[in-house]
Amino acid sequence: MNAGLQRRLALAHKLADAAGVAIRPHFRQRIDIASKTSGGHPGFDPVTEADRGAEEAMRLLIRETFPSDGIIGEEFGSTPGESGYVWVLDPLDGTRAFIAGQPMWGTLIALECQGEPVLGIIEQPFLRERFIGAGGRAELQSREGAVIPLRTRECNALAEAIVCTTHPFAHFDDGERACFRRVETAARMSRYGGDCYSYGLLAMGFVDVVMEARLAHWDIAAIVPIVEGAGGMVTNWRGAPVHMGGDVIAAGDRRVHAEVLRLIAAG
Amino acid sequence: MNAGLQRRLALAHKLADAAGVAIRPHFRQRIDIASKTSGGHPGFDPVTEADRGAEEAMRLLIRETFPSDGIIGEEFGSTPGESGYVWVLDPLDGTRAFIAGQPMWGTLIALECQGEPVLGIIEQPFLRERFIGAGGRAELQSREGAVIPLRTRECNALAEAIVCTTHPFAHFDDGERACFRRVETAARMSRYGGDCYSYGLLAMGFVDVVMEARLAHWDIAAIVPIVEGAGGMVTNWRGAPVHMGGDVIAAGDRRVHAEVLRLIAAG
Repeated sequence: MNAGLQRRLALAHKLADAAGVAIRPHFRQRIDIASKTSGGHPGFDPVTEADRGAEEAMRLLIRETFPSDGIIGEEFGSTPGESGYVWVLDPLDGTRAFIAGQPMWGTLIALECQGEPVLGIIEQPFLRERFIGAGGRAELQSREGAVIPLRTRECNALAEAIVCTTHPFAHFDDGERACFRRVETAARMSRYGGDCYSYGLLAMGFVDVVMEARLAHWDIAAIVPIVEGAGGMVTNWRGAPVHMGGDVIAAGDRRVHAEVLRLIAAG
Repeated sequence: MNAGLQRRLALAHKLADAAGVAIRPHFRQRIDIASKTSGGHPGFDPVTEADRGAEEAMRLLIRETFPSDGIIGEEFGSTPGESGYVWVLDPLDGTRAFIAGQPMWGTLIALECQGEPVLGIIEQPFLRERFIGAGGRAELQSREGAVIPLRTRECNALAEAIVCTTHPFAHFDDGERACFRRVETAARMSRYGGDCYSYGLLAMGFVDVVMEARLAHWDIAAIVPIVEGAGGMVTNWRGAPVHMGGDVIAAGDRRVHAEVLRLIAAG
């Protein structure tokens, strides 16, 4: 890992800390739907507060530390830079999980160098778990402060795999859902509702495939160094690079990745 | 709350502690599928170890403290008693979540008196969260040790509701799924993958409806005092009591509960 990346890795941890500080107070704050729709607190939305607050805090830290780095953020758009490094930020990925009180959302922090993702973090501030990928390795910082190397598990075939997607109805169109269903029915088991946390579980070796459609650049850029650093693969549904966004297949074992691509192509 | 119930509430907390001690070491223990199917560790299964260990620990504590109470457990069957009190135990509800590393599983502990559920606990040992319902009230013991009263939220209509189910394909037959889809498409949002933790989120006021099919006695008995103690309703899909098992509708607001029953009946 070169010195420029090493210094930015230290910053990335500070960004994750700052995002947690900004978001945590808004998680599981009750909004009574009844009072909301009958006129109470019309302007207040904890998701928006958390989302914008976290991105502002991260942008400020980046500008202070590496003012010539570029920034692409979900909430505040693109700020070009000249250093060759670009930060790609999704302060609150998984807003539906956040709203429902489920701790499967996360802050996604990616760093790209000359257009290639070189660092990624999935931060889960409520669980106090942080998945980090950089320099060809990946690790988990646990709630207890332990640093655990991440390694995907071997899986001989899709028939033995656990497959995750967030929501087969809300996030796939009919054709995409047909592809997903072919993969799901060939697998051992499927689990839903995981959002970005599913990629962390894949890097930990508990799930084998994550399949999602039409992700944005900031939804997937941080995932790539984590999954690849743990020994897995992330591509689009045709096997091409996907860190700029698209339909995503992540797999812990390349044989299963290849099998999923064949099943998709067979549709 | 009478003295018999009060003393058993103290025991119920000890059961939840003991279940956590038995299960926690087995959660997120890696089993490499590849080595498993090629002959490594053929007899070892962390789910079974956790499940049986937790139920054994709980049964031992009950026998020591209230030897004339009955016990019904998922793993070791029924032990009749003469006190009028019966414990209903599911040491590890949500084994698929457990296997996939998702912290949505739980230990379910119910106490029935003369056949009626009077106490319920959902224990999540990894998150260190405990939902408790007894004596017409419900509360959450948080990871930080805070005790937070549980109260479902008001919801004027299903169109404003968040609806949860664990898995619309794995856990419903075609007719049940058609019922669920009518409810889901009339709701504001649906979320999957929540397992027993969804009822805790309903009691906290973050989700409005939980819908599941063909639950066993030990899957639902503990849920009833928690949801009802928080101000919500739990019945089967025809509006009848469900604590002995069946198809479950839980709702935070009785107007939404009634609307869901009408939609199911319209099928």
